[in-house]
Amino acid sequence: MRSLSNEIRSAVLRDFAYGLVENAETIIAANALDLAEAQANGMSNAMLDRLTLNKNRIDQIAEGVLQVEHLEDPLGRVLEERTIASGIHLKKISTAIGVIGIIFESRPNVSADCAALCFKSGNACVLKGGKESYRSCKAITDVMKQALEAHGVNPDALMLAEKPSREETAEFMACREYVDLLIPRGGAGLIQAVVKNAKVPVIETGAGICHTFVDESADFDMAERIIINAKCSRPSVCNAMETLLVHEAAADAFVPRIVKVMKEHGVIIYGDEKACAYDPEIRKGNETNWATEYDDLIMNLVIVKDVHAAVDHIETYGTHHSECIVTASRASKEIFFKDIDSACLYHNASTRFTDGFEFGLGAEIGISTQKLHARGPMGLRELTTYAYHLEGKGEIR
Amino acid sequence: MRSLSNEIRSAVLRDFAYGLVENAETIIAANALDLAEAQANGMSNAMLDRLTLNKNRIDQIAEGVLQVEHLEDPLGRVLEERTIASGIHLKKISTAIGVIGIIFESRPNVSADCAALCFKSGNACVLKGGKESYRSCKAITDVMKQALEAHGVNPDALMLAEKPSREETAEFMACREYVDLLIPRGGAGLIQAVVKNAKVPVIETGAGICHTFVDESADFDMAERIIINAKCSRPSVCNAMETLLVHEAAADAFVPRIVKVMKEHGVIIYGDEKACAYDPEIRKGNETNWATEYDDLIMNLVIVKDVHAAVDHIETYGTHHSECIVTASRASKEIFFKDIDSACLYHNASTRFTDGFEFGLGAEIGISTQKLHARGPMGLRELTTYAYHLEGKGEIR
Repeated sequence: MRSLSNEIRSAVLRDFAYGLVENAETIIAANALDLAEAQANGMSNAMLDRLTLNKNRIDQIAEGVLQVEHLEDPLGRVLEERTIASGIHLKKISTAIGVIGIIFESRPNVSADCAALCFKSGNACVLKGGKESYRSCKAITDVMKQALEAHGVNPDALMLAEKPSREETAEFMACREYVDLLIPRGGAGLIQAVVKNAKVPVIETGAGICHTFVDESADFDMAERIIINAKCSRPSVCNAMETLLVHEAAADAFVPRIVKVMKEHGVIIYGDEKACAYDPEIRKGNETNWATEYDDLIMNLVIVKDVHAAVDHIETYGTHHSECIVTASRASKEIFFKDIDSACLYHNASTRFTDGFEFGLGAEIGISTQKLHARGPMGLRELTTYAYHLEGKGEIR
Repeated sequence: MRSLSNEIRSAVLRDFAYGLVENAETIIAANALDLAEAQANGMSNAMLDRLTLNKNRIDQIAEGVLQVEHLEDPLGRVLEERTIASGIHLKKISTAIGVIGIIFESRPNVSADCAALCFKSGNACVLKGGKESYRSCKAITDVMKQALEAHGVNPDALMLAEKPSREETAEFMACREYVDLLIPRGGAGLIQAVVKNAKVPVIETGAGICHTFVDESADFDMAERIIINAKCSRPSVCNAMETLLVHEAAADAFVPRIVKVMKEHGVIIYGDEKACAYDPEIRKGNETNWATEYDDLIMNLVIVKDVHAAVDHIETYGTHHSECIVTASRASKEIFFKDIDSACLYHNASTRFTDGFEFGLGAEIGISTQKLHARGPMGLRELTTYAYHLEGKGEIR
């Protein structure tokens, strides 16, 4: 893997993408078996929809692979270069991590996305998906394996775990000798299970209790626009807003209007005592609400004394993902940015922008909510590490 | 912690350094109690020496703290800056990690080094040292706590665990909610115990089975100089050479001379079959030897077919730390650098240079042998993470 040029990696990915389109019928046939079994097992319609592949979705998956193929090579970048005191010339160079394990749930497109991202960044990839989508993922990864073989690359650069038992999964997650990194992609339950059981380094992704704070000096029209977008444009994703905090001095003017518009958007609101006083339809919320990622048209509304109280609330109940302050005050914004320990802090913009494509990374394998290695949206560069290359003329210490 | 300016952080560290010198007698008195107990428990002379503090050593510790104080502020650096497609202005800014736990053995100076490095990089620090040095570490950390209080900083920014039980240590290492990173500093046993038991992210440090490969085209005088330095200048450290690999075409000319000179330096040599044929004093080695970090005047000597065989040996038995190729061939060097997955690769220079000070980092908290977050020597910057700061004008997605 380490010796493959970007040209070969790109050629494999192009063949993978074309192969997906060419083999669409085979993939759809495999997917039909998964769907029939899932239906027989009583899977919900929403879940069935996530599992379904059709010609159009396969074209989209292939398009995504080609997008990754087009991206700049993340390997061999010179990150630092200098001559050190001893006279040795030092270069810090980006390199592949090695073997990346991806543990995901039922969406079969994840297998293609991750295979492409890992291979483009020079990493071998072991996929472990949900058993509901095994046949679909197998059909997709078989296409990639053919592309690898066609270019003389060991097809084991991509592996799909064959419905492993619980014990085998545990063994895999403990395998520090052979796996360099685990990335869980899925709901909070899956992520916590991986974090709890893994001995291999894990990057936590996904959990997002995002906040928007409307300061005393906020432009209320702007605040309303941002809040509607942050809550309602796609409530099921991790960068959607869960809790709205409002400065008490802005509450009388702003709370009635935002409650009205959120109700029009079908949003259920849980409020603290002060918030509940503004509208009988606001339900009484508590600490459990403040700490819940709804991923739905539900939100919290809490009135706070000032920006410091907003910071305290976010630090207590947040997940270090994305937070926004709407304010005209530079001082408030500085406090918010300095005192909150989150991956992405927004001033006057929706938290929905926390996304690898929006950030210009060209792709995204997940959004890290931990602080080591990578934070926030992770693209190709976040799938690399580095090595020091040192050139001497016989120097000794 | 996050709001402290570099000026305050520096002032605290200066007071810490001056305080160490002023309180030298108190520290030496505490150390004397540790030493008396260790002696009564039959600690070896080498270990007693590591544990001993005197006026001169305390001056050196204070000097080290001042060096850290002088370093460039690692926080608030703009790592990237651009306007993204939506029109939002994005800055990627270095920030503190949070709470760092350091688990170390008996050298009391580690407590001062780590306290200074963590505080300078804006992190709170929890130290857990060996019980043999508890009183010495307590005396040292008390000085830092006084300096913190004198500047209005919560003295709990630095905590020293009070001889915790095994269960308490296990609980600490599982405490993902309150500890962001664990760095074990010590021997392989300590590091493996931490890696095995921790739920908190760990950076592995230290284990170093470093190799030097003498290629067919090597300058033998240079090779000899580098090998003597890599093996003998300080055999107890992780960047010392453990295994010498020699190209078979160079063996007749080079092996007899290097064996002679290493024997003169008191080095015991374990060889493979071909190496043993050169000298009856070379002991017969095996896979266990190739996988041993001697940290002593002992080395392995293996004759290999070519640079590819050298790469294979290093990938099989190495610890991804530091490796050197001595060669005049650019082609051999390219293969060595491209195919070996180690933190530091040297061409014609001693592996002993793998060190934060030598690399110009100004300080070192350890040498990472893992691939996530930080690799190789870790200085102040490696004790930081980053956050995205995004400035908008009401953008929605």
